Amino acid sequence: MLRLSPPGQHRFSQATTFDMAFGGTEANVAVALAQWGVDVHHITSFPTNALGDAAVAHLRKAGVDTRYVQRGAGRMGLYFLEHGAASRASQVVYDRADSAFSRLTADSVDWETVFVDADGVVADWFHWTGITPAISAGTAACLLKGIETANRLGVPVSGDPVYRSNLWQYGQTPQDVLPELTAGCTLLLGNAGLFSYLYGINATTNEAAAQEMMTRFPRLRYVTDTVRESVSASHNRLSAWLYDGVETVSTPLFDVQPIIDRIGTGDAFMAGLIYGLLHGEQSLTEALTFGVAASVLKHTIPGDVLLATPSEIDDIAAGNLSGKIKR
Amino acid sequence: MLRLSPPGQHRFSQATTFDMAFGGTEANVAVALAQWGVDVHHITSFPTNALGDAAVAHLRKAGVDTRYVQRGAGRMGLYFLEHGAASRASQVVYDRADSAFSRLTADSVDWETVFVDADGVVADWFHWTGITPAISAGTAACLLKGIETANRLGVPVSGDPVYRSNLWQYGQTPQDVLPELTAGCTLLLGNAGLFSYLYGINATTNEAAAQEMMTRFPRLRYVTDTVRESVSASHNRLSAWLYDGVETVSTPLFDVQPIIDRIGTGDAFMAGLIYGLLHGEQSLTEALTFGVAASVLKHTIPGDVLLATPSEIDDIAAGNLSGKIKR
Amino acid sequence: MLRLSPPGQHRFSQATTFDMAFGGTEANVAVALAQWGVDVHHITSFPTNALGDAAVAHLRKAGVDTRYVQRGAGRMGLYFLEHGAASRASQVVYDRADSAFSRLTADSVDWETVFVDADGVVADWFHWTGITPAISAGTAACLLKGIETANRLGVPVSGDPVYRSNLWQYGQTPQDVLPELTAGCTLLLGNAGLFSYLYGINATTNEAAAQEMMTRFPRLRYVTDTVRESVSASHNRLSAWLYDGVETVSTPLFDVQPIIDRIGTGDAFMAGLIYGLLHGEQSLTEALTFGVAASVLKHTIPGDVLLATPSEIDDIAAGNLSGKIKR
Amino acid sequence: MLRLSPPGQHRFSQATTFDMAFGGTEANVAVALAQWGVDVHHITSFPTNALGDAAVAHLRKAGVDTRYVQRGAGRMGLYFLEHGAASRASQVVYDRADSAFSRLTADSVDWETVFVDADGVVADWFHWTGITPAISAGTAACLLKGIETANRLGVPVSGDPVYRSNLWQYGQTPQDVLPELTAGCTLLLGNAGLFSYLYGINATTNEAAAQEMMTRFPRLRYVTDTVRESVSASHNRLSAWLYDGVETVSTPLFDVQPIIDRIGTGDAFMAGLIYGLLHGEQSLTEALTFGVAASVLKHTIPGDVLLATPSEIDDIAAGNLSGKIKR
Amino acid sequence: MLRLSPPGQHRFSQATTFDMAFGGTEANVAVALAQWGVDVHHITSFPTNALGDAAVAHLRKAGVDTRYVQRGAGRMGLYFLEHGAASRASQVVYDRADSAFSRLTADSVDWETVFVDADGVVADWFHWTGITPAISAGTAACLLKGIETANRLGVPVSGDPVYRSNLWQYGQTPQDVLPELTAGCTLLLGNAGLFSYLYGINATTNEAAAQEMMTRFPRLRYVTDTVRESVSASHNRLSAWLYDGVETVSTPLFDVQPIIDRIGTGDAFMAGLIYGLLHGEQSLTEALTFGVAASVLKHTIPGDVLLATPSEIDDIAAGNLSGKIKR
Amino acid sequence: MLRLSPPGQHRFSQATTFDMAFGGTEANVAVALAQWGVDVHHITSFPTNALGDAAVAHLRKAGVDTRYVQRGAGRMGLYFLEHGAASRASQVVYDRADSAFSRLTADSVDWETVFVDADGVVADWFHWTGITPAISAGTAACLLKGIETANRLGVPVSGDPVYRSNLWQYGQTPQDVLPELTAGCTLLLGNAGLFSYLYGINATTNEAAAQEMMTRFPRLRYVTDTVRESVSASHNRLSAWLYDGVETVSTPLFDVQPIIDRIGTGDAFMAGLIYGLLHGEQSLTEALTFGVAASVLKHTIPGDVLLATPSEIDDIAAGNLSGKIKR
Repeated sequence: MLRLSPPGQHRFSQATTFDMAFGGTEANVAVALAQWGVDVHHITSFPTNALGDAAVAHLRKAGVDTRYVQRGAGRMGLYFLEHGAASRASQVVYDRADSAFSRLTADSVDWETVFVDADGVVADWFHWTGITPAISAGTAACLLKGIETANRLGVPVSGDPVYRSNLWQYGQTPQDVLPELTAGCTLLLGNAGLFSYLYGINATTNEAAAQEMMTRFPRLRYVTDTVRESVSASHNRLSAWLYDGVETVSTPLFDVQPIIDRIGTGDAFMAGLIYGLLHGEQSLTEALTFGVAASVLKHTIPGDVLLATPSEIDDIAAGNLSGKIKR
Repeated sequence: MLRLSPPGQHRFSQATTFDMAFGGTEANVAVALAQWGVDVHHITSFPTNALGDAAVAHLRKAGVDTRYVQRGAGRMGLYFLEHGAASRASQVVYDRADSAFSRLTADSVDWETVFVDADGVVADWFHWTGITPAISAGTAACLLKGIETANRLGVPVSGDPVYRSNLWQYGQTPQDVLPELTAGCTLLLGNAGLFSYLYGINATTNEAAAQEMMTRFPRLRYVTDTVRESVSASHNRLSAWLYDGVETVSTPLFDVQPIIDRIGTGDAFMAGLIYGLLHGEQSLTEALTFGVAASVLKHTIPGDVLLATPSEIDDIAAGNLSGKIKR
Repeated sequence: MLRLSPPGQHRFSQATTFDMAFGGTEANVAVALAQWGVDVHHITSFPTNALGDAAVAHLRKAGVDTRYVQRGAGRMGLYFLEHGAASRASQVVYDRADSAFSRLTADSVDWETVFVDADGVVADWFHWTGITPAISAGTAACLLKGIETANRLGVPVSGDPVYRSNLWQYGQTPQDVLPELTAGCTLLLGNAGLFSYLYGINATTNEAAAQEMMTRFPRLRYVTDTVRESVSASHNRLSAWLYDGVETVSTPLFDVQPIIDRIGTGDAFMAGLIYGLLHGEQSLTEALTFGVAASVLKHTIPGDVLLATPSEIDDIAAGNLSGKIKR
Repeated sequence: MLRLSPPGQHRFSQATTFDMAFGGTEANVAVALAQWGVDVHHITSFPTNALGDAAVAHLRKAGVDTRYVQRGAGRMGLYFLEHGAASRASQVVYDRADSAFSRLTADSVDWETVFVDADGVVADWFHWTGITPAISAGTAACLLKGIETANRLGVPVSGDPVYRSNLWQYGQTPQDVLPELTAGCTLLLGNAGLFSYLYGINATTNEAAAQEMMTRFPRLRYVTDTVRESVSASHNRLSAWLYDGVETVSTPLFDVQPIIDRIGTGDAFMAGLIYGLLHGEQSLTEALTFGVAASVLKHTIPGDVLLATPSEIDDIAAGNLSGKIKR
Repeated sequence: MLRLSPPGQHRFSQATTFDMAFGGTEANVAVALAQWGVDVHHITSFPTNALGDAAVAHLRKAGVDTRYVQRGAGRMGLYFLEHGAASRASQVVYDRADSAFSRLTADSVDWETVFVDADGVVADWFHWTGITPAISAGTAACLLKGIETANRLGVPVSGDPVYRSNLWQYGQTPQDVLPELTAGCTLLLGNAGLFSYLYGINATTNEAAAQEMMTRFPRLRYVTDTVRESVSASHNRLSAWLYDGVETVSTPLFDVQPIIDRIGTGDAFMAGLIYGLLHGEQSLTEALTFGVAASVLKHTIPGDVLLATPSEIDDIAAGNLSGKIKR
Repeated sequence: MLRLSPPGQHRFSQATTFDMAFGGTEANVAVALAQWGVDVHHITSFPTNALGDAAVAHLRKAGVDTRYVQRGAGRMGLYFLEHGAASRASQVVYDRADSAFSRLTADSVDWETVFVDADGVVADWFHWTGITPAISAGTAACLLKGIETANRLGVPVSGDPVYRSNLWQYGQTPQDVLPELTAGCTLLLGNAGLFSYLYGINATTNEAAAQEMMTRFPRLRYVTDTVRESVSASHNRLSAWLYDGVETVSTPLFDVQPIIDRIGTGDAFMAGLIYGLLHGEQSLTEALTFGVAASVLKHTIPGDVLLATPSEIDDIAAGNLSGKIKR
């Protein structure tokens, strides 16, 4: 998606220019992982116009492999973002109807080719979010095929079933669609409240909810989420927990003030956690803390995507929050 | 429409910000006339979001009366504009599908109320362009009702049947739709080539084509057009002619170099000509020259709309092109 | 007034560009009320040059009715604003001597026409501030006539007798001029300290001072003020109180950090309070809290004027300060 | 003066920022000469505020000696400049009434100290323009004292009696005031038309007018002017002539397209000519051509002041107009 | 190289920001070819810091394969560019001493791996310029090995022996070093003047000089150059010729006005010509015209690199210079 | 040095423009003192190119006397600064190798002329920092001569032996070089940790370390340092102490939030302290507090240099941190 924001703290009605950036929840995860040296493919479709070209270049700049990015009819998905401050919330106006992406269908992607490279090496991970099945029946069907293929090939799958009420316009509800997708997941992002709404899970604690989700979806090995205390649009506190079926590990609380850009901080967490999990030498707590530290850093960076080295994130994870100049 | 352009001569792929402006062919005519003191209403529909608010504010800032601007579902129509220079053409990427405007229907507007104010005073003029009937069956039907009402009330009607090949996606052709709209017109913009394509008029000169159009559409009193010599994206030469059923009057040739912004120069011509015609003391040649001079000035002004006083335009019309500093 | 500010936190000596905005204490109140759907007229005079045109367009963009804005000789009032941060205060350099506004005289405005429209409907409210009588003998006299006319027609009058020591250059003191203006007021902004300085009121509490003011100026029904704790240029805490002759109601304390733009926050309070009072269904506390919430939001918005919807303000007033993204 | 311009070719009503620069006709000459290594003092008065500080810093940055710059009451003189293009003229809105400079009086400057330094070395040149006596009776009187002192000390004096119709508001006409000032001049800028208007000189050619001026003002050794053909606001052609009482020398015609900034081009000519005359080894034609080349270069530089080295100007003067990249 | 330019036409001493872009003569050729779908590797070395990371991302964004970009000690080469206009030349200040690139040595690159991919497919082309051997003995030696390897593997080699007098600081002259490099070339850029200076070729015409070069360097099949008429920094006329040992073909003359960015126009020509030659179906004249049209378009694009599609270039090559808006 | 920073909180890889500013630790002290009316000379060398010209103009603008600034071969020292926020540290990439400054040698400066003016008046103070001897053997030798000359002439010397590990590349260590330079100092900046590392001082408290330094370097009268608590990159707390051989005086703790620009805050402290010491009427505590207040203010100002009047600093020193608007 192409994001357009009035500069600084200007309101929409004051804008005479827009800052532009590319984003999108799965793309943000892809970009973060690619910059850390992970070989990442992004699966999507962009329109066959100059905006689509620019979106491909954005991914390529970050090192994401774009060979499976399709180009076709439909629009570039847009969103307009107004940055809040203090007690004024940031505001998003979505303009993504009829995107090229929404026109994907069940058969648009040859998932086998995506997951297994020319030398027969199978992918290490597959990540999806709840935006994709919310866009159109086609994208939902295409994603389902991807998850099924990943399951068949033994590729671990992570899902972030984020719910956006202004999507899901195509006649299906998330309650209809998500269970089948969730069933293919190894790792799921969410908490008791979300699971109650989306899956009808009744549980009083996150751990209990996670356990019930695991019972219902036996492939699940990890359930995780961040916990965010929103003091204001400029000041948040962040931590995370992860339940592995046995115990819940968690991270320290990180203070973020001021927040430069709140968008994409969940994607940064997901990217960091996946990166940690892919590096087997790390403990679950270390992987989780890497994820939160990645998210903490994202709050300080304009745009949708986290731009930071693993060593910068390790530094935050290790509790070095002093912000002393690095020369 | 909201227009988004990379700054200066940057290409789309270089942009990190977009300059934004509001435009749209009928709106541009409305803004020009309003700034000259004409009491103008603009009839359209904008989405019920912050972008729609900003579009209303744009019109209001210029002095256009926005009481008949509707707000509803659908998107804000967008277009992306890359400024060319020298031999590189400017490039437009339209993104206007499913705009709030496109959702207007035959009955969306109470035209009688629009044309006759509370004191019973009838409007002096009604202007439409070929964009409106190209958008959707609903906008075409709504416009037709407007023209019919204008005809019934004796309001003169001008039409600019500009043809955009990437519109007309709703199942009708301009050849189907335009004749009925044109039949209600007093003044029409176009030339032999356009009339041949749209109305099947066969004529070797503009005057002959204009005469045939008048024969076919008896309400027509004036047929007019600009003549543009495009030396490059930065250098054009401009003149205009007008046929009143008896003779063709024309203007001197104006040299424009450099061109700052080519968009909206046709709308500025139309606004200028209408303004001239509404001021009965002017001769047809004077009105036409005012129109061309308005268009010439528009080439020097960033954005879609002409911002200039009548006296500035008179100055150009009078041949003062020296550009000496005004203190 | 036209405001010119170095961008960001730059000092005057670093500036190579100025951000520009229009403001002025009464105009700020007008703009806020107009955007909330109130039918507002602004009474002033701007110079007959391009800057004056731009000032009119600013008001018109916001929906303020500018039919009674006069145009005449004199300058556009200017002020230069340098934004502070942390312990560095913002700094204002006024440059408003000999403004077109200052040339208004006792008879410049036909107040009867202003207050009573063509259909005989009388205005709901009249608001003035202490800037106007501080500019020139003419503006003071003109304002006095306005207040007298409002009183005669039964239009409620609010006054913000803000004191600026660098004004009042025309030979009169606020102590001379303000009492007569204050006598016409229904609602007055101020506190014990200000009332002591301007009116010689001796009282140890705001409530006692307010009561003494009411005794002296029997038209007064409400005395109100904000209470501001200035931790730094970037961090304030804000509340408000209002005395209605019987009791003092007050609001919770709102924390504002970071402050984006401190200018116009008092005007936003006034606009919010007037708006609340004009909506009779609200209690005094609700109206007052709406005013403070409007002011709190203004701190987060660049420029002189509050740009926010009533529902955004209601949200703050209801204590939702978390700043969570609105999608 | 502080100059404020909408960026690029934006009109005043489109501006949301202003580019700022310092200028002023005598200051522009001072800055040009200082950068070329000439020891220059600028005599003026700036307000005792942050804008005055910035104006001093502007001069200091350029190497102008500011020890005789006074600081006092009054405003910073401003002007607003809108850049034209093609047939649209640039437009200036002056806002210089009651500047600190205007408050200078006959006795504000100790001219003897200005012209003779601590070591007794007398100044090489004194330059004034017609702006100064047009501002106030005080500045006119102060300037007259300066010219008289220069005459007494044998300092050559150049005058540019530029006429601005919107100045001269203090009760005197240029026809009253200029003759006495002109009488002290060694070199005068102007042509037959200007001399006719200001001094009542009747002559059909510039040379004849110059000769009559010399007859009337016997101190005059040189009369000079540029000749400008204004094709458009973006394209001028420039040359110059100089009459030394015996013959008229002149320069080639220089083509300037596009014009980046027309302001200050006359001051650049004056600075270049003075610089040429101060370097005795140059012929009159060389000095004059250096002046025109300086002016030609100024057209390509944003702001009021010429920023260019003597060798860059020599290059233009020598006819190297190819603009090939210098590495 | 990282390029830093004052915005617009500002001089260095006016800058408070620099526009940044990445460039470098060989990199510019690589970027142009990569965007046209050619599989391109760029061989260089960037410093191991954030600037080096950004340079890699620049190439990656354009689609250049960066797997052979080395990272090491040394600086990022910089250059500062001031844009001229009209008669004022653009000015370049190089700051490239001790770049990471300059530290390459004879053995830094495994050329065999570069030219032959994992599947044994040999590269189609190798391009170098005279900047590389001018930087250091190491880069010269490294390049020589590259050319020798290309020759051994049958990879055609093009050379652009551009001469920069401010390089060649390491003790060798271009006359010493270039012949050996030139001997490996299939295609060479240059003209009689350059060949006389660099190789001591005595010939009165370009064709004769080209023929003598071919006699001396028997691998040469093509000698080519652009011919540029510099009317001003804003207006050039461009054509090209190519001699293939039998005859000289040439292109029409293209007028470029205004020039937006002159840098990289030679590289665009080279990229276009190589692209044309790699597409065997094109005649030599067609390939050459594609090269000139690419160069013509580059003049209209900010930055060092040509960003344009083959079809846009074909349009120019076909003589469509009208710059009419593309919708 | 020329500093280049991505705007706002952008990371290097996001930049398309750089904000530029001039800085350098000794230059920053010079600029601060010059603006306060102190007659300051800066001793350095800049390259003979347009960047060097701009650096001289920077100093001149601030009022620093540049007559002893040398111009010569070598580069302009650069550094690239990325602004951090919250837990993300600011990051500096130095690019200062082979600067013109580094090419100074023992005999480059005639220190006697520098310290004693034409009228025989001896300088009041000489300040150096640890950057200078870290650059090259030549700059170290040149500085040593300066200190020796100052000692001989009785000029008090202050030293800030700041240690940068990425400098000291020329074969000497700070432990070798600094003692001889320190021996000439009257005032030294540092604390127990730094003195231990640089001079091998073993002491458990700052006061004990300062006393040992005084014992070892008998010229020392004052040892001083700031104490900084880094909550985050956006929030610091600052105080300072000074030991005069008898007792340690200290300042209150100042809270700085948000930090606009952390660079140069140590130089602002040093400038403030020197200014306080040069004004004999102040107590040591007053001088020290003036220094800390200067540093506190610097945190709020973009760029390397403190731009603030003594009265603004006095205000902070007096504890007025409320940041209330100054009108």
